[in-house]
Amino acid sequence: MASPRVPVAVVGASGYAGAELCRLLLGHPRAELAAVCGQRRAGEPLASVVPSLAGITGLVLEAFDARALAERVEVALIALPHGDSAPVAAQLLERGVAVLDLSADFRLHDAAVHAAWYSDLPEEAALHRAEAVYGLPERHRPDLAGARLIAVPGCYPTATLLAAAPLLAAGLIAPDVIVDAKSGVSGGGRSPSLATHFCEIGEGIRAYKVAGSHRHTPEMEQELSVAAGAEVAVTFTPHLVPMARGILACVYARATAAASDEATLRQALVAAYAGEPFVTVLAPGKLPDTAHVRGTNRAHVQVAHDSRTGRVIAMAAIDNLGKGAAGQAIQCLNIARGWQETCGLGHIAAFP
Amino acid sequence: MASPRVPVAVVGASGYAGAELCRLLLGHPRAELAAVCGQRRAGEPLASVVPSLAGITGLVLEAFDARALAERVEVALIALPHGDSAPVAAQLLERGVAVLDLSADFRLHDAAVHAAWYSDLPEEAALHRAEAVYGLPERHRPDLAGARLIAVPGCYPTATLLAAAPLLAAGLIAPDVIVDAKSGVSGGGRSPSLATHFCEIGEGIRAYKVAGSHRHTPEMEQELSVAAGAEVAVTFTPHLVPMARGILACVYARATAAASDEATLRQALVAAYAGEPFVTVLAPGKLPDTAHVRGTNRAHVQVAHDSRTGRVIAMAAIDNLGKGAAGQAIQCLNIARGWQETCGLGHIAAFP
Amino acid sequence: MASPRVPVAVVGASGYAGAELCRLLLGHPRAELAAVCGQRRAGEPLASVVPSLAGITGLVLEAFDARALAERVEVALIALPHGDSAPVAAQLLERGVAVLDLSADFRLHDAAVHAAWYSDLPEEAALHRAEAVYGLPERHRPDLAGARLIAVPGCYPTATLLAAAPLLAAGLIAPDVIVDAKSGVSGGGRSPSLATHFCEIGEGIRAYKVAGSHRHTPEMEQELSVAAGAEVAVTFTPHLVPMARGILACVYARATAAASDEATLRQALVAAYAGEPFVTVLAPGKLPDTAHVRGTNRAHVQVAHDSRTGRVIAMAAIDNLGKGAAGQAIQCLNIARGWQETCGLGHIAAFP
Amino acid sequence: MASPRVPVAVVGASGYAGAELCRLLLGHPRAELAAVCGQRRAGEPLASVVPSLAGITGLVLEAFDARALAERVEVALIALPHGDSAPVAAQLLERGVAVLDLSADFRLHDAAVHAAWYSDLPEEAALHRAEAVYGLPERHRPDLAGARLIAVPGCYPTATLLAAAPLLAAGLIAPDVIVDAKSGVSGGGRSPSLATHFCEIGEGIRAYKVAGSHRHTPEMEQELSVAAGAEVAVTFTPHLVPMARGILACVYARATAAASDEATLRQALVAAYAGEPFVTVLAPGKLPDTAHVRGTNRAHVQVAHDSRTGRVIAMAAIDNLGKGAAGQAIQCLNIARGWQETCGLGHIAAFP
Repeated sequence: MASPRVPVAVVGASGYAGAELCRLLLGHPRAELAAVCGQRRAGEPLASVVPSLAGITGLVLEAFDARALAERVEVALIALPHGDSAPVAAQLLERGVAVLDLSADFRLHDAAVHAAWYSDLPEEAALHRAEAVYGLPERHRPDLAGARLIAVPGCYPTATLLAAAPLLAAGLIAPDVIVDAKSGVSGGGRSPSLATHFCEIGEGIRAYKVAGSHRHTPEMEQELSVAAGAEVAVTFTPHLVPMARGILACVYARATAAASDEATLRQALVAAYAGEPFVTVLAPGKLPDTAHVRGTNRAHVQVAHDSRTGRVIAMAAIDNLGKGAAGQAIQCLNIARGWQETCGLGHIAAFP
Repeated sequence: MASPRVPVAVVGASGYAGAELCRLLLGHPRAELAAVCGQRRAGEPLASVVPSLAGITGLVLEAFDARALAERVEVALIALPHGDSAPVAAQLLERGVAVLDLSADFRLHDAAVHAAWYSDLPEEAALHRAEAVYGLPERHRPDLAGARLIAVPGCYPTATLLAAAPLLAAGLIAPDVIVDAKSGVSGGGRSPSLATHFCEIGEGIRAYKVAGSHRHTPEMEQELSVAAGAEVAVTFTPHLVPMARGILACVYARATAAASDEATLRQALVAAYAGEPFVTVLAPGKLPDTAHVRGTNRAHVQVAHDSRTGRVIAMAAIDNLGKGAAGQAIQCLNIARGWQETCGLGHIAAFP
Repeated sequence: MASPRVPVAVVGASGYAGAELCRLLLGHPRAELAAVCGQRRAGEPLASVVPSLAGITGLVLEAFDARALAERVEVALIALPHGDSAPVAAQLLERGVAVLDLSADFRLHDAAVHAAWYSDLPEEAALHRAEAVYGLPERHRPDLAGARLIAVPGCYPTATLLAAAPLLAAGLIAPDVIVDAKSGVSGGGRSPSLATHFCEIGEGIRAYKVAGSHRHTPEMEQELSVAAGAEVAVTFTPHLVPMARGILACVYARATAAASDEATLRQALVAAYAGEPFVTVLAPGKLPDTAHVRGTNRAHVQVAHDSRTGRVIAMAAIDNLGKGAAGQAIQCLNIARGWQETCGLGHIAAFP
Repeated sequence: MASPRVPVAVVGASGYAGAELCRLLLGHPRAELAAVCGQRRAGEPLASVVPSLAGITGLVLEAFDARALAERVEVALIALPHGDSAPVAAQLLERGVAVLDLSADFRLHDAAVHAAWYSDLPEEAALHRAEAVYGLPERHRPDLAGARLIAVPGCYPTATLLAAAPLLAAGLIAPDVIVDAKSGVSGGGRSPSLATHFCEIGEGIRAYKVAGSHRHTPEMEQELSVAAGAEVAVTFTPHLVPMARGILACVYARATAAASDEATLRQALVAAYAGEPFVTVLAPGKLPDTAHVRGTNRAHVQVAHDSRTGRVIAMAAIDNLGKGAAGQAIQCLNIARGWQETCGLGHIAAFP
């Protein structure tokens, strides 16, 4: 007999990451999407706010009420803006609801670093920071089992870490990297703005927040440093590409003496991802393309060695809303609950 | 205990419809993708030709060999060009393999009409035409159960029929319709051509094959006439839109006296699609958008009444490779085999 | 010696039509862009608000002040929202400034029709309505010479009229037409909104304001009726296509007895546009594509005859911001001032 | 009295760079497009092959014939593939026709470097290499006056050089740079291929030819080394972005001790481009976007300093077919002939 499904809530269900969480949970065999919260559109059918759900669910958005929610769900996935998330998480944790938080509120271990990069350090984050597990299964799987509070990584850090962490861990690249990353526009969220208005962004490319002003930088540095066992500096340039979904990260670093050739580098990735259900090291000569992982929790990675200049170029393509947000959250949920890790995440990219 | 999965083959697996069939079958709980044929790229791993399958399948493309295939599979789904399909289908049928054909070779009941619109009428099509069932479940479900040869409808006809057939059947619109349809570029296939080269098509819109020169016209007329119980004339204009997937069909027709208002029209759609797992009549005021059904076997339909001019506008949005091709083929397969109709087709569109 | 350039102002310069007016005027040999008004961003450099002008102009946006403007310019081109425009136009006209208005405020001759379709009929519009000339040179050129107030046509009406008016005037199609038109997203303006947010619109197609609810309908009916010499009913469906610029209008109508074949229809267009500098009737077999007129004041038109169904399909492609707005305004300005009609409008589409 | 226009030919007019040359020359006040050559489509009207020219020119494509051409034109602009160009150029030069070559055949001064990167070193290139001037006016303007053979730079090198050369020349960055560049798909040419088929490229991003395998690398190294007065190593990664036109180059390098802050770096660019008609150093805080220079010969440049990591990020946005190819060729032509440098190049980007 099938086990009963575990009731979960999505808080912030009307944004893109929230909508993706709902999509995944509506097809999840072990979890049941029991409540969807969305402050501004409370009272509206979810399918009216997320039109791809028309005919699929009758759920109605509700205002967040921690007490009421705690009676109905065991787990909450929170997709709220940075700073808004921690108080919500705290209220839920206090009532015994496990939390997977997609914001940055619990990602940085060092409160001072958080304060330096985010203007607002929520007090609740401080209280719970210590128990939060950084939710990148490929690097922290053991800590995720049974975790009560999981900080789901940012989209840029996920792509960057998947491409570079194994190389740093293996001592094949120097601990000083450049990350030139390209993102689909959904990374900018669902609130209308001139910067993400179709006509301003639809047929051109541009960088934004250059020279260390993007707040995913300290997150990359924290996790790459753990991998390297030494402090890693990151020069990060994000770009917006005229497509809805996807992140392609190119990480540049000096090859160390140990990185004698491309095969050695590629082998380090192959070894790191052996048995990983969602990360594929592409065949030699193939390069990652965001279109090939769109709508999935998968990552395509590859590494190249420029023998002329002694530089390594490590690349990863993910879906920023999949492996870069909602998909990864579900993967963490599966691990935390002891379910099969791929549960509800079998999507294959619709190509083309 | 789970029943063993039924082995199936995809013939023409390297094209877009074929790739989509593979994607769907790789996630299907009752069917097993046992063989993939692709003449020109035989010998290459499927994942090398369809890069979204990297890390997912080790299947290798093989040259078509009816005898060998018949020993390994019970069903073949054929995604070959018009005219190439019938001989392949005939060889398989003769060896006891059930066939779902995505080409036009078996769609038209009247051989003369076929000959008039397609230059080449394969002899084999003539032989098997009589037993072919037109695979639109919403209109021909009873005939599909146990069918040995199913002609999967074209993408434009599917969208058009879903929007207009119930209105004609209910006598709410006159049997003379204009279909102005807009398609994603994948409808043009995977063979490189100037017309589908990114730069020629990526940032503009144009019609093609206007004034009754597109070969989906007689297919629409055949099926709409069945629905209407009278001969229906179709003026059809297809367009190419700068997006990979999706078809939006707008059908214009005169309202009859019975179509007193929009509610009456909408009610005819609601009644026609009550209980249909893949067709959603949108809430009043909502209009179909191809983005909302992308990557799925779903259809969003709506109807409007222009009381000023007495015209009805019926609309349907589908994914041309989903409900317009591969998804519909799997839906037909499910019905033909007696499986649950939604088996392996639970996809929800990734929004955005 | 060159004549001194005529000083002109653009009011509403920070929107898309306003920005396009500035682009055209900055390259115009007879007019001088002397003032740019933009209420909300007054005080900012124009090049900061319209980033393609960086390094090209030092003009600064200013708040609208009719008195001050009248001392500096002879002509004002107004690109404000419907209803906002008429009061501004009235103030300028009273002070002797000629006005080209890109809003709908002065387009409809019949005040009752205007009131029925636009909630707000500005009193000033009423006063000046009688003297406003509808600015489609191909149909009203004689009236434009010396005109003091020109109502520049809407984008959809321009494309529709160029395709269909000559056929109605020649009695080749019945006075009851369907207009299925597809627009780039810039037609929705520059104010951020969910509907024009990249992710909601960037990879799908949808209709909007169907069944006679789009306010360009009465404008089409007014002008098509003039051409036909009889009342013409229009069923109009606009769509949004994932591209920034362009409108493709497909007009469907019954062929009359006089329209014996395609050549007759095409000849009517050729005759109508002989000598027209901006309208090209494409060679037989070629179909209009918005990409081919992008960034220009040009129109590509074509007509087809579906002999099976007796229907005519007339098509026109324009740039909604060019021939559909700013380009046409400059063309009207040239005529009104007695300058060469093509002055400052020699742009050829950048292809691709 | 106006001087008579100089007759010029475009060889390779049916490709994208050739079509852009035609567009620019058809609007050029001093040059006259007198002949267009296109081997494969000889005999067809240019407007049939380049549909944006419908109604604009009656020129017909002809097969290349050096002797006949030399009698009709003084200048030829050649937009043929690498290797095909040199023999054509040689034949024309011998007959006294000045040549602007858009291929790589004459760009590299060192024949050995050319041979190492391009499989085929045409003998004619060897003969004429010595007299070829590298056509980047901002760096080699004096050499261009009166030049008989100009090697128009590649698109990636142009963007890279505009961003980085002044910083190297001023000793502000170390002579070891990473170039992460993003190109529109037109950079891949007009020949249909799977890689540039709409559906394969239209909604994703990917790198190609990584780790020093793109042949623009030695061209960047040659010219950056000249600027630096020392050998410069380039690690180059090109990407394809789903847009037709545009290149954004991000150049990463170590700041030297002289580069104390961002203002110093920016000032070096401002000084380098003072008086340059086509290069704009953006205001502080503004970043280049390819959409803002599309369809023009303009470049937007900016530089940032990541004080945390000591790295400099220099950026340039151009249109790969404009300043990256045809526009630059016309700019060189203007200089070579002693015309005003901006002649025929006044285009402002159509925004949006």
